[in-house]
Amino acid sequence: MILQPVVNIAEICARKGVENVVLSPGSRCAPLTIAFARHPKLKVKTVSDERAAAFIALGMALTTGKPTVLICTSGTAALNYAPAVAEAFFQQVPLLILTADRPPEWIDQLDGQTIRQQNVYGQHIKQSYTFPVDFSHPDSVWHSERMVSEALNETIAYPPGPVHINIPLREPFYPAPGEEIAFDADVKIIEEEPANYSLSTAQVQQLKQEISSYKCVLIVAGQQNHTLALQPVLQQFVKQSGAVIVGDLIANLHQLPETVRHQDAILACPDTEKLEKLQPDLLITFGKSVISKALKLYLRKYKPKAHWHIQPAGQVADTYQSLTRIIRCTPEAFFESVQTASDSTYSSDWAEIEKKASAFLKDYTSGADLSELAVVARLFRSLPAQSNLHLANSMAVRYANIIGIDADKDLEIYANRGTSGIDGSNSTTVGCALTSPAITTLLTGDMAFFYDRNGLWHNYLHSNLRIVILNNHAGGIFRLIDGPKQQPELEEFFETRQALDAENTARDFGMNYTSCRSLEELENALPAFFAADAGAGILEIFTDSKANATSFANYKQALLQAL
Amino acid sequence: MILQPVVNIAEICARKGVENVVLSPGSRCAPLTIAFARHPKLKVKTVSDERAAAFIALGMALTTGKPTVLICTSGTAALNYAPAVAEAFFQQVPLLILTADRPPEWIDQLDGQTIRQQNVYGQHIKQSYTFPVDFSHPDSVWHSERMVSEALNETIAYPPGPVHINIPLREPFYPAPGEEIAFDADVKIIEEEPANYSLSTAQVQQLKQEISSYKCVLIVAGQQNHTLALQPVLQQFVKQSGAVIVGDLIANLHQLPETVRHQDAILACPDTEKLEKLQPDLLITFGKSVISKALKLYLRKYKPKAHWHIQPAGQVADTYQSLTRIIRCTPEAFFESVQTASDSTYSSDWAEIEKKASAFLKDYTSGADLSELAVVARLFRSLPAQSNLHLANSMAVRYANIIGIDADKDLEIYANRGTSGIDGSNSTTVGCALTSPAITTLLTGDMAFFYDRNGLWHNYLHSNLRIVILNNHAGGIFRLIDGPKQQPELEEFFETRQALDAENTARDFGMNYTSCRSLEELENALPAFFAADAGAGILEIFTDSKANATSFANYKQALLQAL
Repeated sequence: MILQPVVNIAEICARKGVENVVLSPGSRCAPLTIAFARHPKLKVKTVSDERAAAFIALGMALTTGKPTVLICTSGTAALNYAPAVAEAFFQQVPLLILTADRPPEWIDQLDGQTIRQQNVYGQHIKQSYTFPVDFSHPDSVWHSERMVSEALNETIAYPPGPVHINIPLREPFYPAPGEEIAFDADVKIIEEEPANYSLSTAQVQQLKQEISSYKCVLIVAGQQNHTLALQPVLQQFVKQSGAVIVGDLIANLHQLPETVRHQDAILACPDTEKLEKLQPDLLITFGKSVISKALKLYLRKYKPKAHWHIQPAGQVADTYQSLTRIIRCTPEAFFESVQTASDSTYSSDWAEIEKKASAFLKDYTSGADLSELAVVARLFRSLPAQSNLHLANSMAVRYANIIGIDADKDLEIYANRGTSGIDGSNSTTVGCALTSPAITTLLTGDMAFFYDRNGLWHNYLHSNLRIVILNNHAGGIFRLIDGPKQQPELEEFFETRQALDAENTARDFGMNYTSCRSLEELENALPAFFAADAGAGILEIFTDSKANATSFANYKQALLQAL
Repeated sequence: MILQPVVNIAEICARKGVENVVLSPGSRCAPLTIAFARHPKLKVKTVSDERAAAFIALGMALTTGKPTVLICTSGTAALNYAPAVAEAFFQQVPLLILTADRPPEWIDQLDGQTIRQQNVYGQHIKQSYTFPVDFSHPDSVWHSERMVSEALNETIAYPPGPVHINIPLREPFYPAPGEEIAFDADVKIIEEEPANYSLSTAQVQQLKQEISSYKCVLIVAGQQNHTLALQPVLQQFVKQSGAVIVGDLIANLHQLPETVRHQDAILACPDTEKLEKLQPDLLITFGKSVISKALKLYLRKYKPKAHWHIQPAGQVADTYQSLTRIIRCTPEAFFESVQTASDSTYSSDWAEIEKKASAFLKDYTSGADLSELAVVARLFRSLPAQSNLHLANSMAVRYANIIGIDADKDLEIYANRGTSGIDGSNSTTVGCALTSPAITTLLTGDMAFFYDRNGLWHNYLHSNLRIVILNNHAGGIFRLIDGPKQQPELEEFFETRQALDAENTARDFGMNYTSCRSLEELENALPAFFAADAGAGILEIFTDSKANATSFANYKQALLQAL
């Protein structure tokens, strides 16, 4: 006999729109496993490595925009979720984490799989709840049902994020053989109407007037989901106002032809005069993190007179050390309200250099020399339109951001830039692939790929999954940046050479495998690899870390001459 | 130019006896990497997956008894340590964790690899420190040096455990090319003399008198390190007093011929009369957790009149719900002080049934039928004497505890029973193998092995490592215990069938590989596998989860008839 309030957690989740559940096997969590697995409206998958399970759940929440439920047993299972929970917290992705626990009287009594689970995610969780353990008083049932509604509401309230319910459970964990479990029809549900984050008429007038007083308005978009609502509004605003919009790949604004996408190249230019011409008077930002270090350093040096950040609620970062005003509404509401006409020529200065950078990059990466930058450029030309692209940390996402994506591709772009860890990119991509019908490609390096090999260790490999590995057998980033490359510890303690190729891994998990050692081989392999019916595959491109470093230095030299 | 107080952390660690350092590559932690890698007295290894790195450090601390230092960069790296940190906390293993962090002004500013690292290990750490970030005032230097001494003292003060120093670092992270770093000779060191946890004369008299008043004295040893000091004292005590000593494998008391080692079998007997004869009047316990669920359930039902727990300091668990007295001294001091003569026949009752259980198990596992229990019995006969044995959770450690180890083997036995997770057994064993000259064997199941595959992903594979995998392609435990085996969710959501064999993994990591599908093949393979010069190897024994379940049920039937 499983406690009815525990069974009802699944019912409340289903009624409040949860679709996907990722659980990891365990005995303590069996009542949850059974309740969720038997619920007719929930899709439940089981993944044994909890670190991977949590990143898979994150990927599912990213594509669906709905909270994914995670379920694990007591003990370190909950701690293995922690990296993905932190990523969800900073990337603002809705997750509901249900951890089974021993009842309070058995904590610290040397029983197996028992840790101190209350508030185990510390400062990386929106809210932590403890489920009631006794239901002899009717208020406990009310408490339990209210808690699940509250927790789910909290996962999606702005800013979205992870919420934790720790669930102490006493035996029995299993229904008697043949015993049915039933979901109560009259569970309590609390709905939450989303807030309407918009501006008052007075605010709009004031802001419009102020915007008109600036000649050079620069909009920088941080990481955000691929949302179509914002794009026409933003396009209209920049057309009218002559403002410039700069967006890293993860801003998902590459579909707008107006978006400056080569800021990584442009702002690496040391020509002070050119850089001064690009300096904004007013900087308007929205979204989360940006990838481009060149952009951050540029804006911290060439400070705007004013910096407005648009964010409906929550703590605001002063990324460019120039923040002067926080505006509490959505970017859609803001740009729709404050449309302003201007005759500024600021945007043509940016357009000119953007055109140069774009042409240079196309030309530079068209040669026959194998370099990781050229590989990424070729790959991007072959990516299927309307597909998903996940960019792993650390060099994959940087190369991708240098190359940029053309406007006609219309990709949905993902990257774990909440914490920028290399730890969960395979799993996150798998989660996306499992919940999206589109081809879902991961671009990754060898370190990130093997770090998260367990992201593939389960029984749900989807045919739309494609993994592209830049394998230089090391953390090649350390040879590209100043500092480590001059140290005697470079190879052993920074690059950390690693010997693995992905062929055995592909064999282990029944994936297609292709390897390339030249751009020609790559060009030949790409069409078959991306064919809609090709099935899950790994494409591994071998490069040499030292050659990459030389090539990257050459690229930077050539870039400076071109701009 | 790296800050001198950061360089001096390595010097203080070396001066205070640290030998082993495990670091994971990163840029933010480069000052630590360089200081530790260049210190002439420290052995530094680099492991890319921080989850594995931390368990490897745990294994090193287990064999050496000295704190291992862990170093990682900022962000989720620190969170990937969390499972091993919790294990170290509950298993009481000394670790010093140094996490590089952004300086406080850059927290929550959307920079890469930035989380909230202060107190990130929550309730699973003995102490958390924040390293100073500015050294303009001389008190900061004193603070920083004092902190490292304090932290190291705390790792080994009873009960030992993990201690965390979070180290915010501003650029530059690297010395200029060719710039030397120097360790200060006059760093401040605080030594701590260990406490002498012994009894007063009055206490000894009182305790001896009380012990004499009990006829049936049962000693239960929980998990403890292999320490030779305790064994002769304990042997003398049980010989004189007629007390009985029961020790799970992880109590490391199997070398004492007097130790009852088949409690798992004995106490599964349903014969009330026999069980009553074994009931203690006085239960004396020491050490940490016990594996045997039968023992726990027995003692919770057949409660002693008094239960004394010997523990120098710290919170005490009431594992058997019968605790009446906590005695604050070491087990060595206790048993040496309270030697008492008695003519009780209690020990002969236990000896008789222990003999029966031992004979039964030898006989039962000598047949030709392949079962995991028989595999473990054959394996244990072939284990080299004076070697290390690590037992993975979940079934491996249980099978091992049923079979028991003969007194003449003199093994050092390890298992992560602080949290009893399946997450770090490969890595912990690797850490043991790297710091012990003896053959180091891991007995594991397929779930635990593949979960922690990254424990092998580094450049330090030692020839003394042996991994034995019981591969039933599932979490077979769920078919052995009542509850899940009757549920329709058994195969998908509890056992979670998994397809991997270890052959590709062995190939990936350059290890010998042997597989067996019968006991005969196993017997033939064992001598070569354990040969001193055989090199690192994996021995994979394939069994069938359903056949194991049948066989385990047969074993339980036969056992009941034999006792």
